[in-house]
Amino acid sequence: MEAAVEGQRRPGGDPAFAAVLTVRADTQEAAVSLLDFLEPGWGVSVLPWHVAGQQRLLVQVDGEDALRRVRQAAGRRRRVIGWVDRLWMVSAGGRVQVRPRLPVRSAEDLALVYTPGVGRLAAAIAARPAAAVEVTGRPNRVAVVSDGTAVLGLGDVGPLAALPVMEGKAALFAQLADIDAVPICLDAGDPDKVVAAVRTLAPTFGGINLADIAAPACFDIERRLQDVLDIPVFHDDQHGTAVVVLAGLRNALRVVGKQLETARIVVMGAGAAGTAVARLLLRAGASDVTVWARQGVLGPHLDELPAHKVWLAEHTNPRRIRSGLAHALVGADAVVGVSRGGLLSSQMVAEMALRPVVFALANPEPEIRPEMLAGLDPVIATGRCDYPNHISNALVFPGVFRGALNARAPRITTAMLLAAADVLAGLVGKELLGPRRLLPDVLDPQVVPTVAAAVAAVEASRHHAAEHAGDEGWIDE
Amino acid sequence: MEAAVEGQRRPGGDPAFAAVLTVRADTQEAAVSLLDFLEPGWGVSVLPWHVAGQQRLLVQVDGEDALRRVRQAAGRRRRVIGWVDRLWMVSAGGRVQVRPRLPVRSAEDLALVYTPGVGRLAAAIAARPAAAVEVTGRPNRVAVVSDGTAVLGLGDVGPLAALPVMEGKAALFAQLADIDAVPICLDAGDPDKVVAAVRTLAPTFGGINLADIAAPACFDIERRLQDVLDIPVFHDDQHGTAVVVLAGLRNALRVVGKQLETARIVVMGAGAAGTAVARLLLRAGASDVTVWARQGVLGPHLDELPAHKVWLAEHTNPRRIRSGLAHALVGADAVVGVSRGGLLSSQMVAEMALRPVVFALANPEPEIRPEMLAGLDPVIATGRCDYPNHISNALVFPGVFRGALNARAPRITTAMLLAAADVLAGLVGKELLGPRRLLPDVLDPQVVPTVAAAVAAVEASRHHAAEHAGDEGWIDE
Repeated sequence: MEAAVEGQRRPGGDPAFAAVLTVRADTQEAAVSLLDFLEPGWGVSVLPWHVAGQQRLLVQVDGEDALRRVRQAAGRRRRVIGWVDRLWMVSAGGRVQVRPRLPVRSAEDLALVYTPGVGRLAAAIAARPAAAVEVTGRPNRVAVVSDGTAVLGLGDVGPLAALPVMEGKAALFAQLADIDAVPICLDAGDPDKVVAAVRTLAPTFGGINLADIAAPACFDIERRLQDVLDIPVFHDDQHGTAVVVLAGLRNALRVVGKQLETARIVVMGAGAAGTAVARLLLRAGASDVTVWARQGVLGPHLDELPAHKVWLAEHTNPRRIRSGLAHALVGADAVVGVSRGGLLSSQMVAEMALRPVVFALANPEPEIRPEMLAGLDPVIATGRCDYPNHISNALVFPGVFRGALNARAPRITTAMLLAAADVLAGLVGKELLGPRRLLPDVLDPQVVPTVAAAVAAVEASRHHAAEHAGDEGWIDE
Repeated sequence: MEAAVEGQRRPGGDPAFAAVLTVRADTQEAAVSLLDFLEPGWGVSVLPWHVAGQQRLLVQVDGEDALRRVRQAAGRRRRVIGWVDRLWMVSAGGRVQVRPRLPVRSAEDLALVYTPGVGRLAAAIAARPAAAVEVTGRPNRVAVVSDGTAVLGLGDVGPLAALPVMEGKAALFAQLADIDAVPICLDAGDPDKVVAAVRTLAPTFGGINLADIAAPACFDIERRLQDVLDIPVFHDDQHGTAVVVLAGLRNALRVVGKQLETARIVVMGAGAAGTAVARLLLRAGASDVTVWARQGVLGPHLDELPAHKVWLAEHTNPRRIRSGLAHALVGADAVVGVSRGGLLSSQMVAEMALRPVVFALANPEPEIRPEMLAGLDPVIATGRCDYPNHISNALVFPGVFRGALNARAPRITTAMLLAAADVLAGLVGKELLGPRRLLPDVLDPQVVPTVAAAVAAVEASRHHAAEHAGDEGWIDE
């Protein structure tokens, strides 16, 4: 990331759009020279394996179209023997695997791992259900659940298409937080069936991470599940996004010398992410949040809104703006786009306050491309890993669940989300914080333990408070 | 197994009933001498770790009662510092874990494992669902599903108590067959909800292994699921048991010089296991199978039977026996008990044919203890790992699923079960086959590949035949 030029695509291309070409050539130099058809800037590296007279070349490009062009061009080169999509190559078998936690190498192992060992454990749990915490994987197992109705920016593509996404999340849970995360894609058809299926599955899991479920059904599904289950239910697209946006926005405002409490903030989009972002910003102390949705700028003047937008209309837009997005942005300190690609123009951003903060998080195409804002001295973040300031909920969900599971929290509270955002923002020290460095890297080994500790501490104090008085506010309060 | 004396418990005790005692003693000898309260024959070994003046002793006993006595006695010894149940010790965290299949160590890895990589895969599957086979873990992932209504010999103890059992099965799937097996315990309440939940889950999995679901609901659940799903659905308690019994019985009859086709065989129990055993024996060519159930010996003379018993009543009991179990056993060559502990007497077995074959598979207490049959020259098998001839469905389910997944079979057929039983029996060569050696060990590395190859070969010929003519018989035909 340090090597990239601000507002420019990285020269090496994106590893998710890479081809491995096998070419007939004796030396690496000869192999590379074959690829004179590549556009300048596309990355080429020669992979180290080769057989008599053959070399393999790894070609990274910026996107699917470029990948297709490489493939077509390669097909016309007689010295290109074979072509394989690198993403396909690494994806065979999926992103997670199940391994035995105990060795099974002898009859003795078998007696412990299977019968009669499991029989004695089953009897113990039947007599005392709490024993399941001690002798099963339940307390560390999280279901990563989707019905495929809102998969990334692709929309309602169904549960099978959601599977690689849930597997990717499960791999991050496993890698970053040592959580036994199981991808679960549901062929549901309607929200009631999602609720029914997850309720039925619950004895297996210590937590439920909902993902890529369309709004407004996602709100109802999460609330109904949390009402009946005594394990944390967390809709990633809502709260994961809200936490990472709050953390990033705090730091971005710090960079430009402003305060969250007094900043004018416009949220574009009132789906799962936009709704949760606006709500969490308010809970964090922001006083001037305005939400722009399909119906226009939300406010009490609008009738016939769906329930979640009614709440937003009543609690945001303090200056009672009634016109469109462009008007709402005039003088705004920050805009958080969680809507669709290309909806912002450089003209709109030019009308914002000096040193505007622009979070253009739509994927894969941001609300505005960072390179279009040159000259406005903005602080920019996107949802893409190939620009600086990648706003990824992968900074959030592993640590939040690690903390909740460690603390045996029965649910995730708003206080936990606020605490997670605070420590996440705090992980970028003053000396590092800058317009191109708002948040830590997803792979920074401090992220998960720090977020987890903050979440667990909130649960400990909630537990303490609940024992002494009433109860604390949940997410949905 | 070789070291055990036939008809006697193994001297070392059972590892699933073991305690680890921490005692105050400077030497191993002093530590062991402390345990003079142990009954002769209970195993004691000194574990190698110790701290200043302390030693740890591993004490294996035969069962829960003996374990309790050890614990009580240990509590009265002042030099015993601490006590821990070994099974609890090894069970913390459960029996399976989820690990990333791909490394996630760099921003480049992240782009492949998570976004934007997964976005491109999701789009590809949305456009062409068959791509899921190439780029997700689905084809190698099996759900190990129970509703907890018939957990081992414990009965309807619920889904949470079933969890260690499903985790144990998942660990064996993973260890023995490299299958990504996920324990799934359902809080269902009725069979319709089991069917609904598994249907909804199906996009996630390449196969469904049902287990510990009570009869008769299990028959209906399996059939309804297989009717709507295009992945194998396999009720382990039925077909896993039937295959291993058929394999063991073939070899047992070989040992006593008889033939399956002409042997008189009595099956005790018409639950999930008994029904499947009787049906598979008939399909394998047995001509004289009689089933004894709660209602008595099944036959056309009985009215008002549940559906699965009506089928058995019509297709078994060729000599039209109408009286009780004792009568049915007179002159029988083999009895397969899949019922309840203690239901067979040595008197009944004495009335069977010479060299009777007795499979007493009830767990944990067999229909009759092997030591009660001394003098009758029987061939005995049980469902316990601490007697010779442990009849375990763990010999079956890993290999059957490995083969079905390898062949992309849409279901498990009766022909596959018969083929699996044949090769399983064949794995014990003539020179090894004997009254105490009917089947290979569960951990014999030949078992899974051999069974898998047999199952896959059946699918290949079924596929070939289906392309050329009609279709082949499924399990439920």
